[in-house]
Amino acid sequence: MHIDILTLFPEMFHGVFQSSILNKAVERQQFTYELVNFREYSKNKHQKVDDYPYGGGAGMVLTPQPIFDAVEAVKSKRNSNPRVILMCPQGETLTQQKSEELAKEDHLIFICGHYEGYDERIREHIVTDEISIGDYVLTGGELGSMVVVDSVVRLLPDVLGNQQSAPQDSFSTGLLEHPHYTRPADFRGYKVPDVLLSGNHANIASWRRKQSLLRTWNRRKDLLDNMELTDEDKNTLKNDKSDEIL
Amino acid sequence: MHIDILTLFPEMFHGVFQSSILNKAVERQQFTYELVNFREYSKNKHQKVDDYPYGGGAGMVLTPQPIFDAVEAVKSKRNSNPRVILMCPQGETLTQQKSEELAKEDHLIFICGHYEGYDERIREHIVTDEISIGDYVLTGGELGSMVVVDSVVRLLPDVLGNQQSAPQDSFSTGLLEHPHYTRPADFRGYKVPDVLLSGNHANIASWRRKQSLLRTWNRRKDLLDNMELTDEDKNTLKNDKSDEIL
Repeated sequence: MHIDILTLFPEMFHGVFQSSILNKAVERQQFTYELVNFREYSKNKHQKVDDYPYGGGAGMVLTPQPIFDAVEAVKSKRNSNPRVILMCPQGETLTQQKSEELAKEDHLIFICGHYEGYDERIREHIVTDEISIGDYVLTGGELGSMVVVDSVVRLLPDVLGNQQSAPQDSFSTGLLEHPHYTRPADFRGYKVPDVLLSGNHANIASWRRKQSLLRTWNRRKDLLDNMELTDEDKNTLKNDKSDEIL
Repeated sequence: MHIDILTLFPEMFHGVFQSSILNKAVERQQFTYELVNFREYSKNKHQKVDDYPYGGGAGMVLTPQPIFDAVEAVKSKRNSNPRVILMCPQGETLTQQKSEELAKEDHLIFICGHYEGYDERIREHIVTDEISIGDYVLTGGELGSMVVVDSVVRLLPDVLGNQQSAPQDSFSTGLLEHPHYTRPADFRGYKVPDVLLSGNHANIASWRRKQSLLRTWNRRKDLLDNMELTDEDKNTLKNDKSDEIL
């Protein structure tokens, strides 16, 4: 996979892209990326990329020309037909399913805006996907695009060292994860549940499923709406859902 | 406001915290932050911070000792009673309201995990808030904490240069933003709507409200559930909601 990121602040990406899983994935050539400062594509003599909004109002609006030209340049360089993703609060809210869908692509272009917003013609004529990472306001699209890239790249083949980790994560199973415990068994008097020390794998699996179900019920009932629950799951919820422990 | 971030990858934050609005806010002393590598608090002779999960399973779990000690150290240094925020997929989903609530605090501590998860005793005994930025899986808590910090810091007094920008953003009004347009009025044959060039401010305000309403109806009906709409808003939706233009 190749990812182009159009941004006025390419330096924002260095820390995140040069650390941890993303850095390893780049080193192993599991994905490549380029940070494109679309100011360099501005035909304005002062390299301006924004202007006042028609109709008045606060803030500046990104003009269409530099972004149109930058997108066309990175497309023709790779002779590809990529998804062109605009990071914006009006977009479709990112989900794990969306990340899985994007992970199947060969080439993604992200457009990261700042200021008050984008000229609407960018959205109408060169963008294929508008994505928001959630219902809150951020300074710009950079952090959002880092979030999408991180969630997508970790799904690419062989990127995660431990292949078992990805499918068991929260949202992948549809339930929130069960609690985890590690050593020591007693920390400042706070103890690990006996069942986890029992060595009885059937009981451990059953305890974990129950904890996942109850935690999901207590915190995110909405996630259960789309799940097919087993009869045992239904019994668990019937008998224990009033527990306030999770 | 002071923010402590407990992380094993402090270098991930440099690009984001040294750019744009966050950097300006630091320079103007509108907030201060410290990146705390909690590995330095490990009492293990190899400075280990993780261990195998009790009960078996893939991945490693963060042990309680380094994180308990690091949180207690940063608390006692400031003699404060901060919110201690765990970034995790099982947490409450971040919203603009939550960011506004956190923006009122004097001191926030973020705990950013990696690996399979946190020992449950961290969650039970030292954390005040568990936050998720959305229903997707990320490599670690670092990007999530950057997102929360960005959304909170921009709400602090005087951080945004243009004081009008914050309240008009998407989610702040409850509606998605209307389209923006800037020069040129004709770009490659794509034209700016006439009303925005008319100079009639009442018509412009009414067009923008209508566009906001219709865009929200078409893309995020769920946001309208919690809104109090005016009679004019209701008429707009009644007459125009079938338009597929937005």
